Amino acid sequence: MKAFEQNIRRVTPYVPGDQPDFPDMIKLNTNESPFPPSPAVKAALDNLPADTLRLYPDPDVKKLVHALAASYDLRDDQVFVGVGSDDVLAMAFMTFFNSEKPILFPDITYSFYDVWARLFHIPYSCPPLDENFKIHPEDYFGENGGVVLANPNAPTSIFMPLSEIETILQHNQDVIVIVDEAYIDFGGVSAVELLPKYENLVVVQTFSKSRAMAGMRIGYAMASPALIQAMNAVKASYNSYTMNRPAIEAGTAAAQDTAYFRACCQKIIETRAYTASRLAEMGFTCLDSCTNFLFASHPAIPAAELYQKLKERHIFVRYFNKPRIDNYLRITIGTDEQMARFCEAVKEILSH
Amino acid sequence: MKAFEQNIRRVTPYVPGDQPDFPDMIKLNTNESPFPPSPAVKAALDNLPADTLRLYPDPDVKKLVHALAASYDLRDDQVFVGVGSDDVLAMAFMTFFNSEKPILFPDITYSFYDVWARLFHIPYSCPPLDENFKIHPEDYFGENGGVVLANPNAPTSIFMPLSEIETILQHNQDVIVIVDEAYIDFGGVSAVELLPKYENLVVVQTFSKSRAMAGMRIGYAMASPALIQAMNAVKASYNSYTMNRPAIEAGTAAAQDTAYFRACCQKIIETRAYTASRLAEMGFTCLDSCTNFLFASHPAIPAAELYQKLKERHIFVRYFNKPRIDNYLRITIGTDEQMARFCEAVKEILSH
Repeated sequence: MKAFEQNIRRVTPYVPGDQPDFPDMIKLNTNESPFPPSPAVKAALDNLPADTLRLYPDPDVKKLVHALAASYDLRDDQVFVGVGSDDVLAMAFMTFFNSEKPILFPDITYSFYDVWARLFHIPYSCPPLDENFKIHPEDYFGENGGVVLANPNAPTSIFMPLSEIETILQHNQDVIVIVDEAYIDFGGVSAVELLPKYENLVVVQTFSKSRAMAGMRIGYAMASPALIQAMNAVKASYNSYTMNRPAIEAGTAAAQDTAYFRACCQKIIETRAYTASRLAEMGFTCLDSCTNFLFASHPAIPAAELYQKLKERHIFVRYFNKPRIDNYLRITIGTDEQMARFCEAVKEILSH
Repeated sequence: MKAFEQNIRRVTPYVPGDQPDFPDMIKLNTNESPFPPSPAVKAALDNLPADTLRLYPDPDVKKLVHALAASYDLRDDQVFVGVGSDDVLAMAFMTFFNSEKPILFPDITYSFYDVWARLFHIPYSCPPLDENFKIHPEDYFGENGGVVLANPNAPTSIFMPLSEIETILQHNQDVIVIVDEAYIDFGGVSAVELLPKYENLVVVQTFSKSRAMAGMRIGYAMASPALIQAMNAVKASYNSYTMNRPAIEAGTAAAQDTAYFRACCQKIIETRAYTASRLAEMGFTCLDSCTNFLFASHPAIPAAELYQKLKERHIFVRYFNKPRIDNYLRITIGTDEQMARFCEAVKEILSH
């Protein structure tokens, strides 16, 4: 190693799902929406004069913040926006998790939490999910440096009732509790309604799934004004202008089109029910999903093998080669037609 | 202070220039380009199907990386892209400055360096510029944890010859040396040509000034493959998908339109010469600028007062209330017409 390499930060990065690109593929591996964004998004982008790109965007992103606050009945000073929920979560980790005590998150959850903890040198501890992949609230009652929970959890798809989230908040009044709700719009109940009672709660959501805008990189946090102010100060110490002009315009338009957003979520919930019943008929166990994906296992065919055989057919799902979940596949819910073709392919693979 | 507030990271954020918005204003305060981006940018955005926004962008941003590498005769593995050069620089600080020894940068320079150092708990030391606002290379020859230099420097506008950058590199083989070239295209010579000789050199540039795309948030670093790989690993530990689809398409188009880019830079250089001579006629001292702004002082009117009087006329320039530079104004070069109007306003203020 050369001398100048000695002080380079060494990390094991998060590995996102593959981004294959075949014309005939069915891409069910990164939990994207099968639907386009709201038509209002296209209109907003068409109306953005290219000339204005020479000017910096609003560093406070007031327009998008206001549209989001209005849609959740919050004040503008309760909303923080960033470059996808990963940016928002990373910023929240940096802002809030500066204790010597370990932060807590489940052993099986969004696999970026431990990556951020290591990047920022945050100690962490991971209470295991139970044998049914459920979180036990009492595992989070002890002393800690903060709590972060994905709800619904990923990749399990399981939603934890708000009453249980609240018991965790009640036992963690002295630290920040982050609830990462990337998948909340597919049947869960948001912890946003707990914000008036808990000043130490941070709720994070994203435009990448239910708003069908993974390609635009927009995420947001909702919390008490004091916490949002702290996040904005850290953000302004990192990068003053994170949201570019197209993201601000498109995000605002999407946030305002609640009807389209609800209709897309409802459609995915219906297609999920259809897919789950088809998989059950074929002998799969699917965990009870409140997300835009199913987490499924089959007694006769190893998940890794099914993953490979689907891949050969240009059907992409997500496989995690990790303890406890290495016999499950995470299957994003696509259109009705995509899921019918997916089910046919699975049926055909199982019949050989 | 509530218990949960005790572990919040407390920072003094960077304060960007005001973003006033008056229809009749002349905005010369944030070093934006007075010209629109390349027409190819508009075409690229018009050709981006809104439907594709449902899909994640390429996390490796291969298209934009390749266009940039090609335009600098580099290999693709020598280029890193981020959300503006602030994102790139913050990532570089986090990746490379992990020594116990202080990093070095001048006392007067881009005012984000000390903000990042404090955010990431990096020790730092600031050799003073001399009485002519010049950097003395030998101030950077001692033991340190890394070096970061803006060249041309900001807000002084002064370019340091590449031979002096090279002596600093020769005396700093064991640490990373970052050269921040936000303003290099307005008459300076890029340290990119030193990359084959110095594996510890990182050159950072931006689309915000010479590419007229501050609103799109694109910056990039050029370095040896080992350093770019280290930055990509840290980036993938922070946020896998930072560049949204419009930024990738627009950035690629702009990077490919070298002719338009050079013509805009040339025009700004000419207008800068005109403005500097008009200011000199009125008794101003302007530092010798290789940037898209002038740093100017007048013996008869305090900079703070001139700043205020211009502001009242909706002409916005930048004033820094900081030691040593509090009698200077930073004046962005606009169009010929804007600069003529600016000079008339200054003349009128001076005559009262």
